[in-house]
Amino acid sequence: MTAMSRRRAARVRVGRMRGGWFTIRGDSVAVEEPMEVRLEVPADGATREHPVSVTMRTPGDDFELAAGFLFTEGVVTDPRALADVRYCRDVDPQEYNVVTASLRDPGAFDATSLTRNFYVTSSCGVCGKASLESVEVMGCQAVPDGTLGIHESELRALPGRLRSAQQVFDRTGGIHAAGLFDAAGAINLVREDVGRHNAVDKVVGALVLSGRLPGSESGLVVSGRSSFEILQKAAMAGFPMVVAVGAPSSLAVTFARRFNMTLVGFAKHDGYNVYSGGERIEGVKGG
Amino acid sequence: MTAMSRRRAARVRVGRMRGGWFTIRGDSVAVEEPMEVRLEVPADGATREHPVSVTMRTPGDDFELAAGFLFTEGVVTDPRALADVRYCRDVDPQEYNVVTASLRDPGAFDATSLTRNFYVTSSCGVCGKASLESVEVMGCQAVPDGTLGIHESELRALPGRLRSAQQVFDRTGGIHAAGLFDAAGAINLVREDVGRHNAVDKVVGALVLSGRLPGSESGLVVSGRSSFEILQKAAMAGFPMVVAVGAPSSLAVTFARRFNMTLVGFAKHDGYNVYSGGERIEGVKGG
Repeated sequence: MTAMSRRRAARVRVGRMRGGWFTIRGDSVAVEEPMEVRLEVPADGATREHPVSVTMRTPGDDFELAAGFLFTEGVVTDPRALADVRYCRDVDPQEYNVVTASLRDPGAFDATSLTRNFYVTSSCGVCGKASLESVEVMGCQAVPDGTLGIHESELRALPGRLRSAQQVFDRTGGIHAAGLFDAAGAINLVREDVGRHNAVDKVVGALVLSGRLPGSESGLVVSGRSSFEILQKAAMAGFPMVVAVGAPSSLAVTFARRFNMTLVGFAKHDGYNVYSGGERIEGVKGG
Repeated sequence: MTAMSRRRAARVRVGRMRGGWFTIRGDSVAVEEPMEVRLEVPADGATREHPVSVTMRTPGDDFELAAGFLFTEGVVTDPRALADVRYCRDVDPQEYNVVTASLRDPGAFDATSLTRNFYVTSSCGVCGKASLESVEVMGCQAVPDGTLGIHESELRALPGRLRSAQQVFDRTGGIHAAGLFDAAGAINLVREDVGRHNAVDKVVGALVLSGRLPGSESGLVVSGRSSFEILQKAAMAGFPMVVAVGAPSSLAVTFARRFNMTLVGFAKHDGYNVYSGGERIEGVKGG
């Protein structure tokens, strides 16, 4: 069994009220199941296993989710140090909900990342500024000028292209998507999940596992809103641009400006808002 | 300064593309800032402070958020044991991002809750069934029959009423809401946040702080989708009904059925889907 073959939508009986009339029928909902990530690190000639996280996710692309999470959260600092990602073999019955990644190099494991949330208490306590600094501590740098440009007409086409590529949304109406696009506006990779952040981790994890990071010639398009967490994951992967169908948060805007990223919100076929890095969008009239 | 007075929307400069024309203008975005929750527990004649969580949230209703989170996640098992919730005084400059709750009774602190995620590994590893069982371990019980009923025309009116009560959404287009409704369909309490789960915690926290739990005569209406996490928080608060504007996940449906809760999805003025507990909805024709 590979990580790809799990069921991502489930059938349920639903009472459906429409136009004042009630019927019972079968319908599909997006599957949500917990997944635990463990990290195996070489230590003194043996290996030591660290519990890392439990997240609610839609099954499928589980190895990409694990690899993406470990990298974008700074637990594994060098993606090349990942030796293997597999389902844990010690569970019975095997439910394919525990994923173990192993490192070949213990130097690529940042143990402080597992408790970092409690150590961002700088002089101001926790605050947005401290959150941005903690991402820099993870080795994240500002995107160079001149990376990735896209014509504004292609940018407006991205949400429609993402939506067309969503397999599970069609059946359930309730799942987020993240996709990778290139300078021509083509979407090369799409992943879906009930969690916005998981969909992004799956995309980044696909690049981690195929040795294609940093993603400096790719942009990220997401079906939902953009928050600090989404920007952090995009920045860790080196994406110069994030295009969201929904609204950004204040910290997403601050983040994009600090890391020289392009941030677009409310993207649709006939318009969009640019919050940062507008110079990467070509063919714009007015201003 | 009270917990209520923080800025929930921020002004930013935005490049706005509409109808092929680009303009620069000011616009509002929902504020996102980290908040740390600490819990002070009596121990051996003194007190001991435990770091509990750091969450990205929209400022405002911070004490309710802290109280709601501590209760719905099972960290504080008896809301009456909360002696005080305040901003931490040891941070300088004071950014109002660290909230300390103190317990008068150490018996109401479940220390295992802080690491519970790593101990749900039952025989099947983590799985949806284990997640449901972990909520039962937290003392959550099935909702009794006969609690709360609402006419289906009032149910269809809830999303519009919630939307009308959203102050920050009007300005930003990017924030979730959760509200409490009664059997007549009146919405009595609305809280907003960039995080769906935080909006629910703020609603539950308001009941915790005013001694109004369990909420067996109230339903919860949410602006987004329903997931395991939302259902857990509603069940902990004793709400018999969750009405969501968006889709449910598979585990939300399973949860609602196991805990005898009513779960409605895709709610709008002219229709809705019922995934569980349809007997609490009155005035339905057909079937």
